[in-house]
Amino acid sequence: MDDTGIEALIGLMARLPGLGPRSARRAVLAMLKKRQQLMAPLAQSLAEVALAARDCQICGNISTADICPICANPARATGEICVVEDVADLWALERAGAFRGRYHVLGGTLSALDGIGPDELGIPRLVARVADENATEIILALNATVDGQTTAHYIADALAAAPAQITTLAQGVPVGGELDYLDDGTLGAALRARRRL
Amino acid sequence: MDDTGIEALIGLMARLPGLGPRSARRAVLAMLKKRQQLMAPLAQSLAEVALAARDCQICGNISTADICPICANPARATGEICVVEDVADLWALERAGAFRGRYHVLGGTLSALDGIGPDELGIPRLVARVADENATEIILALNATVDGQTTAHYIADALAAAPAQITTLAQGVPVGGELDYLDDGTLGAALRARRRL
Repeated sequence: MDDTGIEALIGLMARLPGLGPRSARRAVLAMLKKRQQLMAPLAQSLAEVALAARDCQICGNISTADICPICANPARATGEICVVEDVADLWALERAGAFRGRYHVLGGTLSALDGIGPDELGIPRLVARVADENATEIILALNATVDGQTTAHYIADALAAAPAQITTLAQGVPVGGELDYLDDGTLGAALRARRRL
Repeated sequence: MDDTGIEALIGLMARLPGLGPRSARRAVLAMLKKRQQLMAPLAQSLAEVALAARDCQICGNISTADICPICANPARATGEICVVEDVADLWALERAGAFRGRYHVLGGTLSALDGIGPDELGIPRLVARVADENATEIILALNATVDGQTTAHYIADALAAAPAQITTLAQGVPVGGELDYLDDGTLGAALRARRRL
């Protein structure tokens, strides 16, 4: 090789998650062999998205418009706001297709160590939004980690004055999961939250 | 999501080898979070390489110049030409750093079924080049497959009239390989090609 342009491209590709130097080289070689069909359209698409992508002014989702397609969809003004830590979580919930309301993306969890307080997570903005939109239910879909749950409790407290109902995701046995392979914490939670068949 | 621009980008990324829809989504999300540091430079680099990349007029290597850096390097005019099937093989040999001559990239193997004959692989061009450059050694570094070996024999015949020596890669035990895990063919080849210690 020794081609500086191609080497630089491989170096950038290798910084993507899931790609190392070896797979980045493989991907670049595949693109070099399909310059017209793959490389040029990918360069074009990347440039367009890099220019247009921005955080939604309402929910914090990333899209190519000031207001993301979810917030812009009037059919989704159900009064339900689902609070998630990260855009990846929003995308995962959208793939599940089980939620038809809107979102609020925190962009992280409260962390005294990292200097992340309520303002950094837009919690005052969420409280104002809940009042503005007369939201009826706030679903705290945060990760089941210590940080996630601490943040969920903080948000629940901040919203205590709002008339909206505060809910959280159910904990229990994953669909298709085998009891034998579940950790004790999940099994205990599933047992405590048991329901009538 | 539902963002057509971002969806299209994920679709293109998913066409890269080693990336599926899931890892493409993860890569795009990582880029969206690092728009200035990663996404914009990657778009720029891709566009530049897509525009500049071409097949080397001498050896068939892909680079961003008409003559690739290897062919353009006078220190590599050693009279040795290493014939490989694919640019990936050339890159692999360059990484090994054991060869200081030049290459000839076939771009495939002879295949009557796929209609790939000597002309498609540039074999007449190779024969002319061997004469032009007064090459002293032609190393046939083709894959140890039936197609690769058939092609190697064809090239050796085509070059029979040239004064250059025709050689091929040694077959044997891989460095660090354990005999117990080797296939019978490799083990047999290593035994037949045994050498005095």
